[in-house]
Amino acid sequence: MKVIKKIDELRRELKQYRNDKTIGFVPTMGYFHEGHLSLMDRAKAETDIVVVSLYVNPTQFGPNEDLAVYPRDFECDEQLAKEHGVDIIFYPDNDEMYPDGYKTYVYTEELSKKLCGKSRENHFKGVTTIISKLFNIVQPDVAVFGQKDHQQAIILERMVEDLNIPIKMIIAPIIREKDGLAMSSRNKYLSHEERKQSVILSLSLKAAKESVKKGETSAEIIKQQITSQINTSSLAKIDYIEIVNSKDLIDVKIIEKGTFAAVAVYYGKTRLIDNVVLG
Amino acid sequence: MKVIKKIDELRRELKQYRNDKTIGFVPTMGYFHEGHLSLMDRAKAETDIVVVSLYVNPTQFGPNEDLAVYPRDFECDEQLAKEHGVDIIFYPDNDEMYPDGYKTYVYTEELSKKLCGKSRENHFKGVTTIISKLFNIVQPDVAVFGQKDHQQAIILERMVEDLNIPIKMIIAPIIREKDGLAMSSRNKYLSHEERKQSVILSLSLKAAKESVKKGETSAEIIKQQITSQINTSSLAKIDYIEIVNSKDLIDVKIIEKGTFAAVAVYYGKTRLIDNVVLG
Repeated sequence: MKVIKKIDELRRELKQYRNDKTIGFVPTMGYFHEGHLSLMDRAKAETDIVVVSLYVNPTQFGPNEDLAVYPRDFECDEQLAKEHGVDIIFYPDNDEMYPDGYKTYVYTEELSKKLCGKSRENHFKGVTTIISKLFNIVQPDVAVFGQKDHQQAIILERMVEDLNIPIKMIIAPIIREKDGLAMSSRNKYLSHEERKQSVILSLSLKAAKESVKKGETSAEIIKQQITSQINTSSLAKIDYIEIVNSKDLIDVKIIEKGTFAAVAVYYGKTRLIDNVVLG
Repeated sequence: MKVIKKIDELRRELKQYRNDKTIGFVPTMGYFHEGHLSLMDRAKAETDIVVVSLYVNPTQFGPNEDLAVYPRDFECDEQLAKEHGVDIIFYPDNDEMYPDGYKTYVYTEELSKKLCGKSRENHFKGVTTIISKLFNIVQPDVAVFGQKDHQQAIILERMVEDLNIPIKMIIAPIIREKDGLAMSSRNKYLSHEERKQSVILSLSLKAAKESVKKGETSAEIIKQQITSQINTSSLAKIDYIEIVNSKDLIDVKIIEKGTFAAVAVYYGKTRLIDNVVLG
Protein backbone atom coordinates (compact mmCIF):
# COMPACT_ATOMS: atom_id res chain seq x y z
CA MET A 1 0.00 0.00 0.00
CA LYS A 2 1.25 3.46 -0.93
CA VAL A 3 0.66 6.67 0.97
CA ILE A 4 0.61 9.63 -1.41
CA LYS A 5 0.37 13.26 -0.34
CA LYS A 6 0.62 15.10 -3.65
CA ILE A 7 -2.02 15.34 -6.39
CA ASP A 8 0.48 15.05 -9.25
CA GLU A 9 2.08 11.98 -7.75
CA LEU A 10 -1.31 10.32 -7.28
CA ARG A 11 -2.20 11.04 -10.90
CA ARG A 12 1.07 9.54 -12.13
CA GLU A 13 0.55 6.49 -9.95
CA LEU A 14 -3.02 5.92 -11.15
CA LYS A 15 -2.23 6.48 -14.82
CA GLN A 16 -0.67 3.02 -15.18
CA TYR A 17 -3.97 1.38 -14.18
CA ARG A 18 -6.41 3.37 -16.30
CA ASN A 19 -6.29 1.22 -19.42
CA ASP A 20 -6.98 -2.19 -17.98
CA LYS A 21 -7.99 -1.89 -14.33
CA THR A 22 -11.01 -0.41 -12.60
CA ILE A 23 -10.48 2.08 -9.80
CA GLY A 24 -12.61 2.26 -6.67
CA PHE A 25 -12.62 5.25 -4.35
CA VAL A 26 -13.59 5.79 -0.72
CA PRO A 27 -13.31 9.40 0.49
CA THR A 28 -12.91 9.64 4.27
CA MET A 29 -11.87 11.99 7.05
CA GLY A 30 -9.96 9.18 8.74
CA TYR A 31 -10.18 7.73 12.27
CA PHE A 32 -11.45 4.54 10.76
CA HIS A 33 -14.12 2.38 12.34
CA GLU A 34 -15.97 -0.65 11.01
CA GLY A 35 -18.17 1.63 8.92
CA HIS A 36 -15.22 3.00 6.92
CA LEU A 37 -13.70 -0.44 6.62
CA SER A 38 -16.93 -1.85 5.20
CA LEU A 39 -16.77 0.81 2.47
CA MET A 40 -13.22 -0.22 1.61
CA ASP A 41 -14.24 -3.88 1.51
CA ARG A 42 -17.09 -2.97 -0.80
CA ALA A 43 -14.78 -0.99 -3.11
CA LYS A 44 -12.36 -3.91 -3.12
CA ALA A 45 -15.16 -6.27 -4.12
CA GLU A 46 -16.26 -3.99 -6.97
CA THR A 47 -12.95 -2.79 -8.45
CA ASP A 48 -9.30 -3.76 -9.00
CA ILE A 49 -7.54 -0.83 -7.35
CA VAL A 50 -8.85 0.86 -4.20
CA VAL A 51 -7.94 4.45 -3.36
CA VAL A 52 -8.92 5.85 0.03
CA SER A 53 -8.57 9.57 0.65
CA LEU A 54 -7.93 10.67 4.20
CA TYR A 55 -8.48 14.37 4.58
CA VAL A 56 -10.26 16.34 7.30
CA ASN A 57 -11.84 18.88 4.98
CA PRO A 58 -12.00 22.31 6.64
CA THR A 59 -14.66 23.75 4.30
CA GLN A 60 -17.31 21.37 5.61
CA PHE A 61 -16.91 22.50 9.22
CA GLY A 62 -18.67 25.59 10.56
CA PRO A 63 -16.76 28.19 12.61
CA ASN A 64 -18.08 26.77 15.90
CA GLU A 65 -17.71 23.11 14.98
CA ASP A 66 -15.12 20.48 15.88
CA LEU A 67 -12.53 20.88 13.10
CA ALA A 68 -9.62 21.46 15.48
CA VAL A 69 -10.44 18.52 17.71
CA TYR A 70 -11.75 16.12 15.07
CA PRO A 71 -10.17 12.77 15.98
CA ARG A 72 -7.08 11.76 14.03
CA ASP A 73 -4.85 8.69 14.18
CA PHE A 74 -3.00 8.25 10.93
CA GLU A 75 -0.83 5.32 11.97
CA CYS A 76 -3.76 3.25 13.10
CA ASP A 77 -5.71 4.21 9.94
CA GLU A 78 -2.78 3.21 7.75
CA GLN A 79 -2.59 -0.20 9.40
CA LEU A 80 -6.34 -0.82 9.09
CA ALA A 81 -6.43 0.25 5.44
CA LYS A 82 -3.55 -2.08 4.65
CA GLU A 83 -5.36 -4.97 6.34
CA HIS A 84 -8.40 -4.26 4.18
CA GLY A 85 -6.53 -4.43 0.90
CA VAL A 86 -6.43 -0.71 0.12
CA ASP A 87 -3.86 0.04 -2.59
CA ILE A 88 -3.36 3.77 -2.12
CA ILE A 89 -4.09 6.22 0.68
CA PHE A 90 -4.30 9.79 -0.59
CA TYR A 91 -3.33 11.95 2.37
CA PRO A 92 -3.01 15.58 1.24
CA ASP A 93 -2.54 18.67 3.41
CA ASN A 94 -4.59 21.87 3.25
CA ASP A 95 -2.13 23.71 0.99
CA GLU A 96 -2.47 20.93 -1.54
CA MET A 97 -6.28 21.02 -1.53
CA TYR A 98 -7.02 24.71 -0.98
CA PRO A 99 -4.01 26.73 -2.10
CA ASP A 100 -3.93 30.53 -1.75
CA GLY A 101 -6.49 32.25 -3.95
CA TYR A 102 -8.91 29.31 -3.91
CA LYS A 103 -12.37 30.51 -5.01
CA THR A 104 -14.56 27.77 -6.52
CA TYR A 105 -17.44 25.96 -4.84
CA VAL A 106 -19.94 23.34 -5.94
CA TYR A 107 -23.36 23.66 -4.45
CA THR A 108 -26.45 21.50 -4.63
CA GLU A 109 -29.10 24.04 -3.85
CA GLU A 110 -32.23 23.36 -1.76
CA LEU A 111 -31.08 19.87 -0.69
CA SER A 112 -28.19 21.47 1.21
CA LYS A 113 -30.46 23.71 3.30
CA LYS A 114 -32.55 20.91 4.78
CA LEU A 115 -32.03 18.54 7.74
CA CYS A 116 -28.37 18.84 8.80
CA GLY A 117 -28.05 21.88 6.53
CA LYS A 118 -30.30 23.88 8.87
CA SER A 119 -27.85 23.77 11.75
CA ARG A 120 -24.71 23.32 9.62
CA GLU A 121 -25.07 26.16 7.15
CA ASN A 122 -22.20 25.61 4.71
CA HIS A 123 -21.51 21.99 5.54
CA PHE A 124 -22.80 20.41 2.33
CA LYS A 125 -21.28 23.09 0.15
CA GLY A 126 -17.94 22.01 1.64
CA VAL A 127 -18.78 18.36 1.02
CA THR A 128 -19.84 18.76 -2.61
CA THR A 129 -16.79 20.93 -3.27
CA ILE A 130 -14.21 18.56 -1.80
CA ILE A 131 -15.83 15.52 -3.39
CA SER A 132 -15.84 17.25 -6.80
CA LYS A 133 -12.14 17.93 -6.37
CA LEU A 134 -11.34 14.41 -5.22
CA PHE A 135 -13.37 12.92 -8.07
CA ASN A 136 -11.37 14.99 -10.56
CA ILE A 137 -8.11 13.95 -8.94
CA VAL A 138 -8.81 10.23 -8.58
CA GLN A 139 -11.19 9.81 -11.54
CA PRO A 140 -12.48 6.52 -10.18
CA ASP A 141 -14.92 4.17 -11.89
CA VAL A 142 -16.78 3.59 -8.65
CA ALA A 143 -17.10 5.62 -5.43
CA VAL A 144 -18.47 4.21 -2.18
CA PHE A 145 -20.22 6.26 0.52
CA GLY A 146 -22.01 5.29 3.71
CA GLN A 147 -25.74 5.35 4.27
CA LYS A 148 -25.18 6.81 7.75
CA ASP A 149 -24.76 10.20 6.11
CA HIS A 150 -27.97 9.72 4.16
CA GLN A 151 -28.45 13.37 3.28
CA GLN A 152 -24.86 13.56 2.10
CA ALA A 153 -25.39 10.48 -0.05
CA ILE A 154 -28.55 11.95 -1.60
CA ILE A 155 -26.82 15.27 -2.28
CA LEU A 156 -23.76 13.61 -3.81
CA GLU A 157 -25.90 11.37 -6.02
CA ARG A 158 -27.77 14.48 -7.16
CA MET A 159 -24.46 16.27 -7.84
CA VAL A 160 -23.08 13.34 -9.83
CA GLU A 161 -26.21 13.21 -11.94
CA ASP A 162 -26.49 16.99 -12.39
CA LEU A 163 -22.86 17.56 -13.31
CA ASN A 164 -22.69 14.42 -15.49
CA ILE A 165 -19.81 13.02 -13.49
CA PRO A 166 -18.95 9.62 -15.02
CA ILE A 167 -18.69 7.70 -11.74
CA LYS A 168 -20.87 4.89 -10.41
CA MET A 169 -22.04 5.72 -6.88
CA ILE A 170 -22.53 2.98 -4.30
CA ILE A 171 -24.23 3.77 -1.00
CA ALA A 172 -23.38 1.05 1.52
CA PRO A 173 -25.43 0.18 4.63
CA ILE A 174 -24.91 1.67 8.08
CA ILE A 175 -22.61 -0.36 10.33
CA ARG A 176 -23.69 -0.37 13.96
CA GLU A 177 -22.22 -1.14 17.37
CA LYS A 178 -23.63 -4.24 19.07
CA ASP A 179 -26.24 -2.17 20.90
CA GLY A 180 -27.33 -0.47 17.66
CA LEU A 181 -25.50 2.90 17.81
CA ALA A 182 -24.46 3.88 14.28
CA MET A 183 -20.67 3.86 14.06
CA SER A 184 -19.13 7.33 13.84
CA SER A 185 -15.74 8.84 14.49
CA ARG A 186 -17.51 11.27 16.79
CA ASN A 187 -18.77 8.52 19.13
CA LYS A 188 -15.44 8.72 20.91
CA TYR A 189 -16.42 12.15 22.27
CA LEU A 190 -19.25 10.59 24.30
CA SER A 191 -18.96 10.21 28.07
CA HIS A 192 -19.78 6.82 29.52
CA GLU A 193 -23.31 7.91 30.42
CA GLU A 194 -23.88 9.67 27.08
CA ARG A 195 -22.68 6.56 25.26
CA LYS A 196 -25.14 4.44 27.23
CA GLN A 197 -28.08 6.75 26.51
CA SER A 198 -27.20 7.31 22.83
CA VAL A 199 -28.55 3.88 21.93
CA ILE A 200 -31.96 5.58 21.96
CA LEU A 201 -31.36 6.97 18.44
CA SER A 202 -31.20 3.58 16.79
CA LEU A 203 -33.81 2.08 19.11
CA SER A 204 -36.34 4.80 18.30
CA LEU A 205 -35.72 4.42 14.54
CA LYS A 206 -36.03 0.66 14.75
CA ALA A 207 -39.33 1.03 16.63
CA ALA A 208 -40.53 3.51 14.00
CA LYS A 209 -39.80 1.03 11.25
CA GLU A 210 -41.68 -1.63 13.18
CA SER A 211 -44.70 0.66 13.49
CA VAL A 212 -44.67 1.29 9.74
CA LYS A 213 -44.39 -2.45 9.09
CA LYS A 214 -47.46 -2.93 11.28
CA GLY A 215 -49.41 -0.51 9.11
CA GLU A 216 -48.83 3.01 10.44
CA THR A 217 -48.65 5.45 7.50
CA SER A 218 -48.87 8.85 9.24
CA ALA A 219 -45.54 10.69 9.27
CA GLU A 220 -46.78 12.89 12.11
CA ILE A 221 -47.52 9.92 14.36
CA ILE A 222 -44.17 8.28 13.58
CA LYS A 223 -42.38 11.56 14.26
CA GLN A 224 -44.14 11.92 17.63
CA GLN A 225 -43.26 8.35 18.48
CA ILE A 226 -39.54 8.90 17.75
CA THR A 227 -39.56 12.23 19.58
CA SER A 228 -41.12 10.90 22.77
CA GLN A 229 -38.79 7.92 22.76
CA ILE A 230 -35.65 10.04 22.35
CA ASN A 231 -36.91 12.38 25.04
CA THR A 232 -36.74 9.50 27.53
CA SER A 233 -32.97 9.97 27.32
CA SER A 234 -32.27 12.71 29.86
CA LEU A 235 -29.03 13.90 28.23
CA ALA A 236 -30.40 14.02 24.66
CA LYS A 237 -31.03 17.40 23.04
CA ILE A 238 -32.89 16.94 19.76
CA ASP A 239 -31.57 18.96 16.81
CA TYR A 240 -34.13 17.56 14.37
CA ILE A 241 -36.36 14.60 13.70
CA GLU A 242 -37.66 14.56 10.16
CA ILE A 243 -39.70 12.25 7.97
CA VAL A 244 -38.83 13.10 4.38
CA ASN A 245 -38.65 11.68 0.89
CA SER A 246 -35.33 10.60 -0.63
CA LYS A 247 -35.68 12.64 -3.80
CA ASP A 248 -35.81 16.19 -2.50
CA LEU A 249 -35.78 15.78 1.30
CA ILE A 250 -39.22 17.36 1.61
CA ASP A 251 -41.49 16.55 4.59
CA VAL A 252 -44.10 13.96 3.78
CA LYS A 253 -47.46 13.40 5.42
CA ILE A 254 -47.97 9.82 4.32
CA ILE A 255 -45.13 7.32 4.52
CA GLU A 256 -44.47 5.68 1.16
CA LYS A 257 -41.64 4.18 -0.91
CA GLY A 258 -38.46 6.18 -0.40
CA THR A 259 -39.62 7.89 2.79
CA PHE A 260 -37.02 7.85 5.52
CA ALA A 261 -36.68 9.10 9.07
CA ALA A 262 -33.57 11.08 9.96
CA VAL A 263 -32.54 12.29 13.39
CA ALA A 264 -29.79 14.50 14.78
CA VAL A 265 -29.32 14.62 18.51
CA TYR A 266 -26.79 16.40 20.70
CA TYR A 267 -25.20 14.72 23.69
CA GLY A 268 -23.29 17.57 25.25
CA LYS A 269 -21.31 19.06 22.37
CA THR A 270 -21.40 15.83 20.39
CA ARG A 271 -23.88 15.77 17.54
CA LEU A 272 -24.99 12.28 16.47
CA ILE A 273 -27.03 11.42 13.39
CA ASP A 274 -28.88 8.31 12.33
CA ASN A 275 -31.55 7.37 9.83
CA VAL A 276 -33.72 4.56 8.61
CA VAL A 277 -35.69 3.93 5.45
CA LEU A 278 -39.34 3.54 6.50
CA GLY A 279 -41.25 2.98 3.29
CA MET B 1 -18.55 14.84 -39.02
CA LYS B 2 -21.18 13.51 -36.64
CA VAL B 3 -23.95 15.49 -34.97
CA ILE B 4 -24.82 13.97 -31.60
CA LYS B 5 -27.66 15.13 -29.38
CA LYS B 6 -27.51 12.66 -26.49
CA ILE B 7 -24.92 12.48 -23.72
CA ASP B 8 -24.79 8.69 -23.67
CA GLU B 9 -24.29 8.51 -27.40
CA LEU B 10 -21.46 11.06 -27.27
CA ARG B 11 -19.76 9.06 -24.51
CA ARG B 12 -19.99 5.86 -26.52
CA GLU B 13 -18.64 7.61 -29.60
CA LEU B 14 -15.69 9.14 -27.73
CA LYS B 15 -14.80 5.96 -25.86
CA GLN B 16 -13.13 4.44 -28.92
CA TYR B 17 -10.64 7.32 -29.07
CA ARG B 18 -9.63 7.55 -25.41
CA ASN B 19 -6.79 5.07 -25.48
CA ASP B 20 -4.74 6.38 -28.35
CA LYS B 21 -6.10 9.76 -29.49
CA THR B 22 -6.21 13.17 -27.87
CA ILE B 23 -9.52 14.99 -27.70
CA GLY B 24 -9.92 18.74 -28.16
CA PHE B 25 -13.04 20.61 -27.12
CA VAL B 26 -14.57 23.95 -28.09
CA PRO B 27 -17.76 24.85 -26.19
CA THR B 28 -19.93 27.35 -28.10
CA MET B 29 -23.41 28.82 -28.27
CA GLY B 30 -23.34 28.56 -32.07
CA TYR B 31 -23.91 31.20 -34.76
CA PHE B 32 -20.29 30.77 -35.74
CA HIS B 33 -18.07 33.63 -36.84
CA GLU B 34 -14.33 33.73 -37.53
CA GLY B 35 -13.69 33.86 -33.79
CA HIS B 36 -15.33 30.49 -33.16
CA LEU B 37 -13.69 29.00 -36.24
CA SER B 38 -10.25 30.09 -35.04
CA LEU B 39 -10.87 28.15 -31.81
CA MET B 40 -11.78 25.03 -33.80
CA ASP B 41 -8.66 25.43 -35.92
CA ARG B 42 -6.59 25.76 -32.78
CA ALA B 43 -8.16 22.63 -31.26
CA LYS B 44 -7.51 20.77 -34.52
CA ALA B 45 -3.86 21.83 -34.43
CA GLU B 46 -3.47 20.64 -30.83
CA THR B 47 -5.44 17.37 -30.77
CA ASP B 48 -6.57 14.41 -32.90
CA ILE B 49 -10.32 14.58 -32.43
CA VAL B 50 -12.21 17.86 -32.16
CA VAL B 51 -15.57 18.08 -30.39
CA VAL B 52 -17.58 21.31 -30.61
CA SER B 53 -20.60 21.73 -28.37
CA LEU B 54 -23.38 23.95 -29.65
CA TYR B 55 -25.78 24.84 -26.89
CA VAL B 56 -27.41 28.14 -25.98
CA ASN B 57 -27.17 27.69 -22.22
CA PRO B 58 -30.20 29.20 -20.48
CA THR B 59 -28.59 29.41 -17.03
CA GLN B 60 -26.11 32.05 -18.16
CA PHE B 61 -28.80 34.46 -19.33
CA GLY B 62 -30.56 36.84 -16.95
CA PRO B 63 -34.36 37.18 -16.97
CA ASN B 64 -34.20 40.38 -19.05
CA GLU B 65 -31.47 39.23 -21.40
CA ASP B 66 -31.54 37.96 -24.97
CA LEU B 67 -31.95 34.19 -24.51
CA ALA B 68 -35.11 33.97 -26.65
CA VAL B 69 -33.68 35.98 -29.52
CA TYR B 70 -30.06 34.80 -29.32
CA PRO B 71 -29.10 34.19 -32.97
CA ARG B 72 -29.22 30.59 -34.17
CA ASP B 73 -28.43 28.99 -37.53
CA PHE B 74 -27.65 25.33 -37.09
CA GLU B 75 -27.36 24.42 -40.75
CA CYS B 76 -24.83 27.12 -41.46
CA ASP B 77 -22.90 26.22 -38.26
CA GLU B 78 -22.84 22.57 -39.26
CA GLN B 79 -21.39 23.43 -42.66
CA LEU B 80 -18.71 25.73 -41.19
CA ALA B 81 -17.68 23.20 -38.55
CA LYS B 82 -17.33 20.53 -41.22
CA GLU B 83 -15.13 22.82 -43.31
CA HIS B 84 -12.90 23.37 -40.28
CA GLY B 85 -12.31 19.69 -39.65
CA VAL B 86 -14.53 19.27 -36.60
CA ASP B 87 -15.20 15.58 -35.88
CA ILE B 88 -18.26 15.81 -33.64
CA ILE B 89 -20.85 18.49 -32.93
CA PHE B 90 -22.56 17.92 -29.59
CA TYR B 91 -25.96 19.56 -29.94
CA PRO B 92 -28.11 18.74 -26.90
CA ASP B 93 -31.48 20.19 -25.96
CA ASN B 94 -32.46 21.67 -22.60
CA ASP B 95 -34.05 18.45 -21.28
CA GLU B 96 -30.75 16.68 -21.87
CA MET B 97 -28.69 19.29 -20.03
CA TYR B 98 -31.05 20.42 -17.26
CA PRO B 99 -33.60 17.66 -16.65
CA ASP B 100 -36.39 18.10 -14.09
CA GLY B 101 -35.09 18.34 -10.54
CA TYR B 102 -31.75 19.84 -11.56
CA LYS B 103 -30.12 21.47 -8.52
CA THR B 104 -26.30 21.72 -8.73
CA TYR B 105 -24.25 24.81 -9.55
CA VAL B 106 -20.56 25.55 -9.73
CA TYR B 107 -19.56 28.99 -8.62
CA THR B 108 -16.26 30.83 -8.65
CA GLU B 109 -16.88 33.37 -5.94
CA GLU B 110 -15.66 36.99 -6.03
CA LEU B 111 -14.42 36.76 -9.65
CA SER B 112 -18.01 36.27 -10.78
CA LYS B 113 -19.26 39.48 -9.13
CA LYS B 114 -16.88 41.82 -10.94
CA LEU B 115 -16.92 43.49 -14.40
CA CYS B 116 -19.67 41.77 -16.42
CA GLY B 117 -20.87 40.10 -13.21
CA LYS B 118 -22.08 43.45 -11.88
CA SER B 119 -24.72 43.87 -14.55
CA ARG B 120 -25.19 40.14 -15.29
CA GLU B 121 -25.77 38.75 -11.81
CA ASN B 122 -25.84 34.99 -12.33
CA HIS B 123 -24.14 34.89 -15.71
CA PHE B 124 -20.84 33.36 -14.64
CA LYS B 125 -22.50 30.88 -12.33
CA GLY B 126 -24.31 29.63 -15.42
CA VAL B 127 -21.06 29.54 -17.37
CA THR B 128 -19.03 27.63 -14.77
CA THR B 129 -21.92 25.20 -14.28
CA ILE B 130 -22.43 24.37 -17.95
CA ILE B 131 -18.69 24.13 -18.61
CA SER B 132 -18.27 21.76 -15.65
CA LYS B 133 -21.01 19.60 -17.09
CA LEU B 134 -19.60 19.66 -20.61
CA PHE B 135 -16.10 18.89 -19.32
CA ASN B 136 -17.46 15.83 -17.50
CA ILE B 137 -19.35 14.72 -20.59
CA VAL B 138 -16.59 15.24 -23.17
CA GLN B 139 -13.58 14.67 -20.87
CA PRO B 140 -11.24 16.36 -23.34
CA ASP B 141 -7.47 16.63 -23.05
CA VAL B 142 -7.56 20.24 -24.23
CA ALA B 143 -10.27 22.91 -24.22
CA VAL B 144 -10.07 26.13 -26.21
CA PHE B 145 -11.76 29.41 -25.26
CA GLY B 146 -11.58 32.91 -26.72
CA GLN B 147 -9.80 35.87 -25.19
CA LYS B 148 -12.75 38.11 -26.13
CA ASP B 149 -14.53 36.82 -23.04
CA HIS B 150 -11.49 37.58 -20.92
CA GLN B 151 -13.31 37.48 -17.59
CA GLN B 152 -14.90 34.18 -18.56
CA ALA B 153 -11.47 32.80 -19.47
CA ILE B 154 -9.99 33.92 -16.14
CA ILE B 155 -12.90 32.44 -14.19
CA LEU B 156 -12.76 29.13 -16.07
CA GLU B 157 -9.00 28.85 -15.60
CA ARG B 158 -9.54 29.48 -11.88
CA MET B 159 -12.30 26.84 -11.79
CA VAL B 160 -10.14 24.26 -13.58
CA GLU B 161 -7.29 24.87 -11.15
CA ASP B 162 -9.51 24.96 -8.05
CA LEU B 163 -11.51 21.84 -8.88
CA ASN B 164 -8.43 19.95 -10.14
CA ILE B 165 -10.02 19.35 -13.52
CA PRO B 166 -7.47 17.45 -15.63
CA ILE B 167 -7.85 19.53 -18.79
CA LYS B 168 -5.33 21.83 -20.48
CA MET B 169 -6.89 25.24 -21.08
CA ILE B 170 -5.97 27.29 -24.14
CA ILE B 171 -7.10 30.91 -24.43
CA ALA B 172 -6.89 31.99 -28.07
CA PRO B 173 -6.61 35.60 -29.31
CA ILE B 174 -9.55 37.86 -30.19
CA ILE B 175 -10.51 37.79 -33.87
CA ARG B 176 -11.61 41.18 -35.19
CA GLU B 177 -13.50 42.60 -38.13
CA LYS B 178 -11.41 44.63 -40.59
CA ASP B 179 -12.21 47.87 -38.76
CA GLY B 180 -11.25 46.35 -35.41
CA LEU B 181 -14.62 45.41 -33.87
CA ALA B 182 -14.23 42.20 -31.90
CA MET B 183 -16.23 39.44 -33.55
CA SER B 184 -19.36 38.43 -31.65
CA SER B 185 -22.59 36.66 -32.46
CA ARG B 186 -24.34 39.70 -31.01
CA ASN B 187 -22.87 42.10 -33.60
CA LYS B 188 -25.70 41.12 -35.91
CA TYR B 189 -28.12 42.98 -33.63
CA LEU B 190 -26.43 46.31 -34.45
CA SER B 191 -28.13 48.81 -36.75
CA HIS B 192 -26.04 50.25 -39.56
CA GLU B 193 -25.22 53.38 -37.57
CA GLU B 194 -24.51 51.44 -34.34
CA ARG B 195 -22.22 49.11 -36.25
CA LYS B 196 -20.32 52.10 -37.63
CA GLN B 197 -19.91 53.72 -34.23
CA SER B 198 -19.06 50.50 -32.39
CA VAL B 199 -15.55 50.55 -33.80
CA ILE B 200 -14.80 53.00 -30.97
CA LEU B 201 -14.43 50.11 -28.48
CA SER B 202 -11.42 48.59 -30.20
CA LEU B 203 -10.01 52.00 -31.22
CA SER B 204 -10.08 53.27 -27.66
CA LEU B 205 -8.41 50.12 -26.34
CA LYS B 206 -5.77 50.26 -29.05
CA ALA B 207 -5.06 53.88 -28.17
CA ALA B 208 -4.84 52.94 -24.49
CA LYS B 209 -2.28 50.30 -25.27
CA GLU B 210 -0.31 52.83 -27.28
CA SER B 211 -0.32 55.26 -24.35
CA VAL B 212 0.99 52.56 -22.03
CA LYS B 213 3.68 51.67 -24.56
CA LYS B 214 4.71 55.32 -24.56
CA GLY B 215 5.15 55.22 -20.81
CA GLU B 216 1.80 56.01 -19.19
CA THR B 217 1.41 53.89 -16.02
CA SER B 218 -1.60 55.51 -14.33
CA ALA B 219 -4.72 53.36 -14.55
CA GLU B 220 -6.87 56.41 -13.78
CA ILE B 221 -5.49 58.38 -16.74
CA ILE B 222 -5.88 55.42 -19.10
CA LYS B 223 -9.42 54.89 -17.89
CA GLN B 224 -10.28 58.55 -18.49
CA GLN B 225 -8.72 58.35 -21.93
CA ILE B 226 -10.84 55.32 -22.90
CA THR B 227 -13.96 56.87 -21.39
CA SER B 228 -13.70 60.15 -23.21
CA GLN B 229 -12.94 58.38 -26.48
CA ILE B 230 -15.95 56.05 -26.19
CA ASN B 231 -18.12 59.03 -25.25
CA THR B 232 -17.42 60.56 -28.66
CA SER B 233 -19.75 57.83 -29.98
CA SER B 234 -23.21 59.39 -29.59
CA LEU B 235 -25.07 56.04 -29.42
CA ALA B 236 -22.72 54.40 -26.91
CA LYS B 237 -23.89 53.85 -23.34
CA ILE B 238 -21.00 52.72 -21.18
CA ASP B 239 -21.72 49.78 -18.84
CA TYR B 240 -18.20 49.68 -17.43
CA ILE B 241 -14.61 50.55 -18.22
CA GLU B 242 -12.18 48.85 -15.87
CA ILE B 243 -8.43 48.52 -15.50
CA VAL B 244 -7.82 45.37 -13.48
CA ASN B 245 -5.30 42.61 -12.86
CA SER B 246 -5.72 39.18 -14.43
CA LYS B 247 -5.43 37.24 -11.21
CA ASP B 248 -8.39 38.48 -9.22
CA LEU B 249 -9.93 41.20 -11.42
CA ILE B 250 -9.21 43.87 -8.81
CA ASP B 251 -8.80 47.53 -9.84
CA VAL B 252 -5.17 48.57 -10.11
CA LYS B 253 -3.69 52.06 -9.75
CA ILE B 254 -0.44 51.38 -11.56
CA ILE B 255 -0.41 49.42 -14.81
CA GLU B 256 1.91 46.44 -14.64
CA LYS B 257 2.33 42.92 -16.02
CA GLY B 258 -1.06 41.22 -16.31
CA THR B 259 -3.07 44.44 -16.13
CA PHE B 260 -5.79 44.64 -18.73
CA ALA B 261 -8.50 47.05 -19.75
CA ALA B 262 -12.01 45.69 -20.20
CA VAL B 263 -15.02 47.56 -21.53
CA ALA B 264 -18.72 46.82 -21.89
CA VAL B 265 -20.84 49.22 -23.90
CA TYR B 266 -24.49 49.19 -24.89
CA TYR B 267 -25.64 50.19 -28.36
CA GLY B 268 -29.39 50.19 -27.95
CA LYS B 269 -30.17 46.83 -26.34
CA THR B 270 -26.98 45.25 -27.67
CA ARG B 271 -24.20 44.88 -25.14
CA LEU B 272 -20.70 44.64 -26.61
CA ILE B 273 -17.52 43.75 -24.74
CA ASP B 274 -13.85 44.06 -25.62
CA ASN B 275 -10.54 44.01 -23.79
CA VAL B 276 -6.82 44.44 -24.23
CA VAL B 277 -3.82 43.45 -22.16
CA LEU B 278 -2.01 46.67 -21.26
CA GLY B 279 0.93 45.60 -19.15
